[in-house]
Amino acid sequence: MDALTFHEGRHFLQIPGPTNVPDRVLRAINKPTIDHRGPEFASLTLSVLSRLKKVFNTTGPVVMFPSSGTGAWEAALVNTLSAGDRVLMYETGQFAQLWRGVAERLGLDVEWIEGDWRHGVDPAKIAERLSADPEGSIGAVAVVHNETSTGVASNIAGVRQAMNEAGHPALLMVDTISSLASMDYRHDEWGVDVTVAGSQKGLMLPPGLGFNALSDKALQASASANLRRSYWDWKPFIEANKNGFFPYTPATNLLFGLSEALDILMEEGLEAVFSRHARLARATRGALSAWRLENLAVMPAEYSNSLTAVVMPEGHDADKLRRVILERFDMSLGAGLGKVKGKIFRIGHLGHFNDLMLMGALCGVEMGLKLAGVPHKEGGASAAMRFLAEQG
Amino acid sequence: MDALTFHEGRHFLQIPGPTNVPDRVLRAINKPTIDHRGPEFASLTLSVLSRLKKVFNTTGPVVMFPSSGTGAWEAALVNTLSAGDRVLMYETGQFAQLWRGVAERLGLDVEWIEGDWRHGVDPAKIAERLSADPEGSIGAVAVVHNETSTGVASNIAGVRQAMNEAGHPALLMVDTISSLASMDYRHDEWGVDVTVAGSQKGLMLPPGLGFNALSDKALQASASANLRRSYWDWKPFIEANKNGFFPYTPATNLLFGLSEALDILMEEGLEAVFSRHARLARATRGALSAWRLENLAVMPAEYSNSLTAVVMPEGHDADKLRRVILERFDMSLGAGLGKVKGKIFRIGHLGHFNDLMLMGALCGVEMGLKLAGVPHKEGGASAAMRFLAEQG
Amino acid sequence: MDALTFHEGRHFLQIPGPTNVPDRVLRAINKPTIDHRGPEFASLTLSVLSRLKKVFNTTGPVVMFPSSGTGAWEAALVNTLSAGDRVLMYETGQFAQLWRGVAERLGLDVEWIEGDWRHGVDPAKIAERLSADPEGSIGAVAVVHNETSTGVASNIAGVRQAMNEAGHPALLMVDTISSLASMDYRHDEWGVDVTVAGSQKGLMLPPGLGFNALSDKALQASASANLRRSYWDWKPFIEANKNGFFPYTPATNLLFGLSEALDILMEEGLEAVFSRHARLARATRGALSAWRLENLAVMPAEYSNSLTAVVMPEGHDADKLRRVILERFDMSLGAGLGKVKGKIFRIGHLGHFNDLMLMGALCGVEMGLKLAGVPHKEGGASAAMRFLAEQG
Amino acid sequence: MDALTFHEGRHFLQIPGPTNVPDRVLRAINKPTIDHRGPEFASLTLSVLSRLKKVFNTTGPVVMFPSSGTGAWEAALVNTLSAGDRVLMYETGQFAQLWRGVAERLGLDVEWIEGDWRHGVDPAKIAERLSADPEGSIGAVAVVHNETSTGVASNIAGVRQAMNEAGHPALLMVDTISSLASMDYRHDEWGVDVTVAGSQKGLMLPPGLGFNALSDKALQASASANLRRSYWDWKPFIEANKNGFFPYTPATNLLFGLSEALDILMEEGLEAVFSRHARLARATRGALSAWRLENLAVMPAEYSNSLTAVVMPEGHDADKLRRVILERFDMSLGAGLGKVKGKIFRIGHLGHFNDLMLMGALCGVEMGLKLAGVPHKEGGASAAMRFLAEQG
Repeated sequence: MDALTFHEGRHFLQIPGPTNVPDRVLRAINKPTIDHRGPEFASLTLSVLSRLKKVFNTTGPVVMFPSSGTGAWEAALVNTLSAGDRVLMYETGQFAQLWRGVAERLGLDVEWIEGDWRHGVDPAKIAERLSADPEGSIGAVAVVHNETSTGVASNIAGVRQAMNEAGHPALLMVDTISSLASMDYRHDEWGVDVTVAGSQKGLMLPPGLGFNALSDKALQASASANLRRSYWDWKPFIEANKNGFFPYTPATNLLFGLSEALDILMEEGLEAVFSRHARLARATRGALSAWRLENLAVMPAEYSNSLTAVVMPEGHDADKLRRVILERFDMSLGAGLGKVKGKIFRIGHLGHFNDLMLMGALCGVEMGLKLAGVPHKEGGASAAMRFLAEQG
Repeated sequence: MDALTFHEGRHFLQIPGPTNVPDRVLRAINKPTIDHRGPEFASLTLSVLSRLKKVFNTTGPVVMFPSSGTGAWEAALVNTLSAGDRVLMYETGQFAQLWRGVAERLGLDVEWIEGDWRHGVDPAKIAERLSADPEGSIGAVAVVHNETSTGVASNIAGVRQAMNEAGHPALLMVDTISSLASMDYRHDEWGVDVTVAGSQKGLMLPPGLGFNALSDKALQASASANLRRSYWDWKPFIEANKNGFFPYTPATNLLFGLSEALDILMEEGLEAVFSRHARLARATRGALSAWRLENLAVMPAEYSNSLTAVVMPEGHDADKLRRVILERFDMSLGAGLGKVKGKIFRIGHLGHFNDLMLMGALCGVEMGLKLAGVPHKEGGASAAMRFLAEQG
Repeated sequence: MDALTFHEGRHFLQIPGPTNVPDRVLRAINKPTIDHRGPEFASLTLSVLSRLKKVFNTTGPVVMFPSSGTGAWEAALVNTLSAGDRVLMYETGQFAQLWRGVAERLGLDVEWIEGDWRHGVDPAKIAERLSADPEGSIGAVAVVHNETSTGVASNIAGVRQAMNEAGHPALLMVDTISSLASMDYRHDEWGVDVTVAGSQKGLMLPPGLGFNALSDKALQASASANLRRSYWDWKPFIEANKNGFFPYTPATNLLFGLSEALDILMEEGLEAVFSRHARLARATRGALSAWRLENLAVMPAEYSNSLTAVVMPEGHDADKLRRVILERFDMSLGAGLGKVKGKIFRIGHLGHFNDLMLMGALCGVEMGLKLAGVPHKEGGASAAMRFLAEQG
Repeated sequence: MDALTFHEGRHFLQIPGPTNVPDRVLRAINKPTIDHRGPEFASLTLSVLSRLKKVFNTTGPVVMFPSSGTGAWEAALVNTLSAGDRVLMYETGQFAQLWRGVAERLGLDVEWIEGDWRHGVDPAKIAERLSADPEGSIGAVAVVHNETSTGVASNIAGVRQAMNEAGHPALLMVDTISSLASMDYRHDEWGVDVTVAGSQKGLMLPPGLGFNALSDKALQASASANLRRSYWDWKPFIEANKNGFFPYTPATNLLFGLSEALDILMEEGLEAVFSRHARLARATRGALSAWRLENLAVMPAEYSNSLTAVVMPEGHDADKLRRVILERFDMSLGAGLGKVKGKIFRIGHLGHFNDLMLMGALCGVEMGLKLAGVPHKEGGASAAMRFLAEQG
């Protein structure tokens, strides 16, 4: 089960997630499992939920599933929609596409706004479609806040504004899997109805927890939605959570870890967490510029602070580069997914991460570019370093 | 998050599950999360799957979900059945009933054989119903091998034989959540089509993994089954698992733990594991007899080896007893669930457990009976001790 | 490195020490090592020292060595005495004898009061010897508070009183290796000059830390003592500790564990810790009485609360019994050491331990006695259980 | 106990030791403590000792003390020498000086060859002194292989040759605290009589274990040496170790860690371990050259592969620089010790360490130099990166 090639020293896990889990969180997960129906567990749940709401910026319920983020996508849909309902989705990249697949397999009628994987959601296009739906047949608008496959972030407040201006009653569902706890996000203020999240990115946990944060409107929708649901049903969660319990056995040890991760986030302070991610992201982009390599994200306002996708020069295979870097420097980078497979690679710079970890990662990329014979100008790491030193 | 009342020494976690997690498994879970798309992960998956099959006694595929066992129930149904299909289920206790609820919420037509919660599945009743269904409208028979709410085990080979004798084509689905890796179980030999399991009982892990073991027939059924499914869909799992990967982010750290748990099971040997559970269960029943307390399970052939449900004397509240024991002796016992709430309590004696841990637990029960004023005859612990010493 | 015979479930570590380490402490030890010259470390040291003093009941300095308790014995002597100095020691058992050996190897002149290993220190004998030393040639009286080899505790306040009444200026040195943090101990109030302790008993840590608590008088003595010392020299410790540092590299990870162990002790409260040990010890002695087995300790006032030494019936080998219990029940008991080898075995009931752990241990002893054919009356475990239930 | 300023991400522990402990080792230390007199422990000890000998390149005994390396210095001296014996020592830096202090406090007569802290041991000077001692009054030559305070390595084979050529019978004692398991070392082949080592550097453990490897000649010397010794006495260790035991309670959990660390070293292979250290050291020196900063070590043949000491430009305080780097980048660097305090800082690049960790560390130094206003030429990190990429 150990690495196929022996590597000494710490692995650099710079896929955009799972992210490097803090040793404090790993130690918390290492606690003996307890009775999920006992008083100690109840107090854990209540404490976790109250702190978790701050991360979502909501005062409403947050439901936690023993699942990956994919399950949380499914939960958002089955709780609020009925067979044949129309959902307006937007092609920001691979994960938007995968969510679309979930919706289709559940029998929803997806209205798909095509995108080029290099831009975020254009609120104007949302507005346009909604305006063309005066009868309100579109039940939900479902978009990805930070597209993990491309490093492009979308303007969620803008989407909400477009919906409001269109006067359309659709629910707004937002995937924050790779943005939550790394980039500013405001469930309540932005009028999001269902926020979808997972444990293994900014929350710095191993994978295994999926989250839905809910608005009142989403809850109301769930009362009449007729998609079949059992595991994902919010209602028994909300009921049981009131007393600190769950409708079925929760992933206890991950909850131990979540409690610790929330402590860490609160100790640093969410504002400081966001600033740190912004700083590390800017340093990374500085390296790209110096290397003369292209960011897949085109619009500066849409640059992700949690990961950066790098476009390979024509004729060079990103996966070969990634393999060289993994074998030679023991660093995992994110692959290009779907239609950009081999054409890009992704650098995760989120979660439990700091300036020197980033510099190790960027140096690994720069050395890998050289070893793999990828055309680039030297100096990316130096540029990042100069930027970071100036932020001191 | 710590216990509300301070207790020194180890907690005795004798609910029938989650069970006491071995420190070896906790340490494995404590490993840094790795890239679930990298070569080290692939080799982990392949190694886990090949060993896991031995535990199910199958050569077919085993699908592992990031979910609790409840999810694995749902997966068994949505992969094989179509809207309105009839499922024959059997009331062995609370968990059979909960599974029934899942089926109903998914839109299946449950045919329910009532039971008294004190007996296992009667194969003759299964045969009777199937015989009354010459047109084969029943798509599946779904039963619980070891009913966690009652401590009653059912004769799965007998159910299969009844189905065969009735010449009925229904699928056989079996919940082994609290029997797998504690009691002999044979997916292939007993002709089970879908075996449902979870991580937190005999597999000695924290909760967070759900399992389905599949027969060819189940796989064939899944090709035409029309219940909506996405997260639970077996097909992408089977495809991705071939190379050691998953269709969406798996619960990596629990897989580390599972690998270690399988090592532990193989080091002891499955036969030895089953003998140990049988011995600890008999010792527990010896204690009950000596206390003059009734086992909820009536038929010796159906006694569970992983837990024992104890019937409270009339007028005595099991939950009060459990509270006394928790507060005074820091031991968690299983509550009576559903219709037996307050009327029984359950002693888990499965997983990472041995003679002296059992004796600690039984002494705790005996002292608790005394402190809570529950009528009983002293000497249960002594009887168990005499039995265990004779097994030396 | 794993057990030679495979055993499932938790090992029962009932040697009187090392004791069962709480998982909280193990997790603390698992933290990444930090710079022992940095600010985080300094704050750890200062916090540990201030809490540790409460455990010794002293306001004076406590010196912590990276060593076992044996090193702390040596430190007590080399810091305070000069070549050829006389030390009055008392044969309470094997550990008193080993300490004597240390003193002799260091060139001290040991005056030895013989004992029968079944009684504690007789203050009258101390008084007698000191009275016979009007010229004050005896530099120190060195006794063991709780003799780990016999389960006999001595009256330290009584020894101090005898010294005072004799008007003798000798230093009083006390070994509390198996009593500290399990039994009431008062360095300042009892006028002890050097208290010797180790990490692996009541402090619930793995072995690797040795302690000396010091009086002013001991410090004064150290100024003129001429035994050669370097590693064990208190002076640079006291100096460096003021700012939270150490004269040479400390055992950082054990200090992480010590900090957690002190938290645990303070959460329970030292009075509650002592009561718990007293209760568990009485329960154990109740078991002995019921078994008709003899306690090596003769005087009730001298019964140890941290361990009990059991005298084997004539012609029965304690080590054979221990082997049976280890192989069959995976419990480690303490061997008879030195002149009582094979004649006694010792049950540790200290540290991270509670009623049900004790019951598991006592049941293991009772079953072992039966399996090994050791004559005894059944019912020891039952007697302990009755006693514990009454303490509810 | 947590960091005084909150830092997210991993701390960079680049003092030359304690070094970054691998998480595998931390997990091993996290195992429950076992009976140090039982069979499982014996098999652990025997396995550790046989593998440890390979690291020392010896077939003779290796003694492991629960102590820091300072204790192992003392052990080397007290086991082999008698009061007033002369010891020839060589001022390579602070640790040579500290060892001298130990010798003097133990009553030895130290003959001191002065050095400038920038060169290693000059075998010619050793030869000169020994030649001036025809009567053989010098009992031992004690030198430091790799001076941790200066990053200067000495030619131990050369020292042995000088001793041989002088035909002098003195013992050769070598401190390998910061070289063992990082740089090639050959106890037997180089004719070393006592090798001194500690756990917290190349062995990648937390501090708490001290080691002595012994030649036959050292053992013979110990038979007649009359320095007082008890804790450090080799004899009972060698005796008890034969069966896998210890004369007093060993630091069990650190032995768990040592066993794992030895596994890691053997998996990588010692030759590969040494090459890796050589590569990382050369990269570091490349950075120094590019920064136009001076290496404290003057002779290329004496450059240490485990750490590099950097001379600060006149008028700049190394400790201020280190403080800036700790506060801003959460990296601990080694301070200048003793007479070079404030004049140098030290970069540890040993143990559980790899190319990207080094790059993170060097970038941190380069950014720190800038922030602290230390004159330097940019480009050190780039130079290291270029060198490492070429080693691919």
